[in-house]
Amino acid sequence: MPGTVGDLGEFGLIAEITAGLPSSQQVVVGPGDDCAVFTPSGAVAVSTDTMVQGRHWRDSWSSGHDVGRKAVASSVADLEAEGARPLALVMSLALPAETEMAWVREFSAGVREECVHAGVLLVGGDTTSAPAIVVTSTVFGELAGRAPVTRAGARPGDVVAVRGRLGWAEAGLAVLNRGFRSPAAVVLAHRVPSPPYGQGIVAAEAGATAMVDVSDGLLADLGHIAAASGVAIDLDKGAFAIAEPQTAVAAALGGRDPLAFVLTGGDDHALAACFPRGPVPDGWQVIGAVRAGEPTVLVDGETWDGDPGWQHFVS
Amino acid sequence: MPGTVGDLGEFGLIAEITAGLPSSQQVVVGPGDDCAVFTPSGAVAVSTDTMVQGRHWRDSWSSGHDVGRKAVASSVADLEAEGARPLALVMSLALPAETEMAWVREFSAGVREECVHAGVLLVGGDTTSAPAIVVTSTVFGELAGRAPVTRAGARPGDVVAVRGRLGWAEAGLAVLNRGFRSPAAVVLAHRVPSPPYGQGIVAAEAGATAMVDVSDGLLADLGHIAAASGVAIDLDKGAFAIAEPQTAVAAALGGRDPLAFVLTGGDDHALAACFPRGPVPDGWQVIGAVRAGEPTVLVDGETWDGDPGWQHFVS
Repeated sequence: MPGTVGDLGEFGLIAEITAGLPSSQQVVVGPGDDCAVFTPSGAVAVSTDTMVQGRHWRDSWSSGHDVGRKAVASSVADLEAEGARPLALVMSLALPAETEMAWVREFSAGVREECVHAGVLLVGGDTTSAPAIVVTSTVFGELAGRAPVTRAGARPGDVVAVRGRLGWAEAGLAVLNRGFRSPAAVVLAHRVPSPPYGQGIVAAEAGATAMVDVSDGLLADLGHIAAASGVAIDLDKGAFAIAEPQTAVAAALGGRDPLAFVLTGGDDHALAACFPRGPVPDGWQVIGAVRAGEPTVLVDGETWDGDPGWQHFVS
Repeated sequence: MPGTVGDLGEFGLIAEITAGLPSSQQVVVGPGDDCAVFTPSGAVAVSTDTMVQGRHWRDSWSSGHDVGRKAVASSVADLEAEGARPLALVMSLALPAETEMAWVREFSAGVREECVHAGVLLVGGDTTSAPAIVVTSTVFGELAGRAPVTRAGARPGDVVAVRGRLGWAEAGLAVLNRGFRSPAAVVLAHRVPSPPYGQGIVAAEAGATAMVDVSDGLLADLGHIAAASGVAIDLDKGAFAIAEPQTAVAAALGGRDPLAFVLTGGDDHALAACFPRGPVPDGWQVIGAVRAGEPTVLVDGETWDGDPGWQHFVS
């Protein structure tokens, strides 16, 4: 059995990754042709996300399996945020020839496992060599007659609600950065996000006026809704439950405010949505309100004076 | 005006790339949301292609504009090869923070220019930092009620025909590799391919039974049809016109057989298709026939004893 990607070669690599993939009636052509072909119901939502070795993950913290799961989860979360039903994905894998096949097998198993959780089918991809591992996951969902839920529909009077974890991955990253491996729950949250699969459609059917997935941090991502909708969003500090591991991490880091994880931590891929005033779907938590005003996100009526979330290329 | 990608930051970079992009009635949501959304007619064909700096292009030979055009052209060629009408694409751009914004602007202009040629709209993407520039283009086409033309439908008795250039890019790469910059026509062919846009649908409507785009080399790519269809393909050496620049390059390289460029050169993204016996569409050239037998590609009934095309990771 060959030890590295270079030993196996491109076609051998593709054969390994695509062997025995599940399919469905909606997939007319699967991996191995010039294109994959699928039959969507209604309009098609698409999103693409790239992860880079050493930038989005460290090999000492995340296994190939973790990386495969995260690549699928983080891209499918964008479909959820548009109110689309996840359908299929294609994966590009650029990697050094000396990459161990063991890593690729773990990665491939992680992709398959998360595809099952997320309800998508891997239908194609590309492989090539590169100086570092670069994974690009492009996902497709169907709207099935529903209108997409964009960032632009929030209106004054709406309530703001979230579903899913906030700040867990960031707390995990904080402890890993300091050389610790616990609390295990937040470290695992950094390695593999747990988007609230299925809740995007639930929100859309409940009348969500705007929605995002929280990838850069709650304040930053709600800021996108505020800007696109031309509204102000005011969050209620008291509405946030701080989980025990976050409190523990904040204390261990010298008394940092654990709310900072919740408000600015990215990578958990929770869903944040605006709904017309009234009940929100089961399991969603109301955290604030939409008001008329200059586009901004406030906390208890004030500007939050911490880090508003990270951008690539900015240190 | 900032000089590098790092100066500008991720959101500034995205704003530059997406400013004033054209749209269409089929694009419901364009760049800037969690997903792009489009309304296809019929089934959706999708393909993804990755290009890596230093691997798929050299900065001393190819400008950012060339790279942008090539990224679009090489991926849209896969849609053509499935008989799909090109509709939209998303582009992932991973690049070092020290990349000059001048390169990104050229790249972006090249993407836009080739999108116009190819008839696709850029509807979204992702940017991130990476140790080398890695471009992933994922394209979507619509079948509009037609069946996809796969690699698996060739039948004994079919004729094999091509449309587009063969071996030009390879001849260009050969002279560049030896430090020359001419003949200009083949050097340009290496820098920017010219797929026969629109001819994929023409072939599909003419009853093509199988089709590929020639990215790895004619013998290698027809080999995919032979394997998927379970047929032998026999090419007629006399059917190939050798273009003057290829003859010149072959002579300059010490008497190399110029047919080698035509049979094994990749990256021109011509279309090769099988048709039921009878007339082929205008401008298509018959180059061989499909026969019953073990899956293989022969030239005048014999195995071609040169390089069958390249694979990534194999030197």
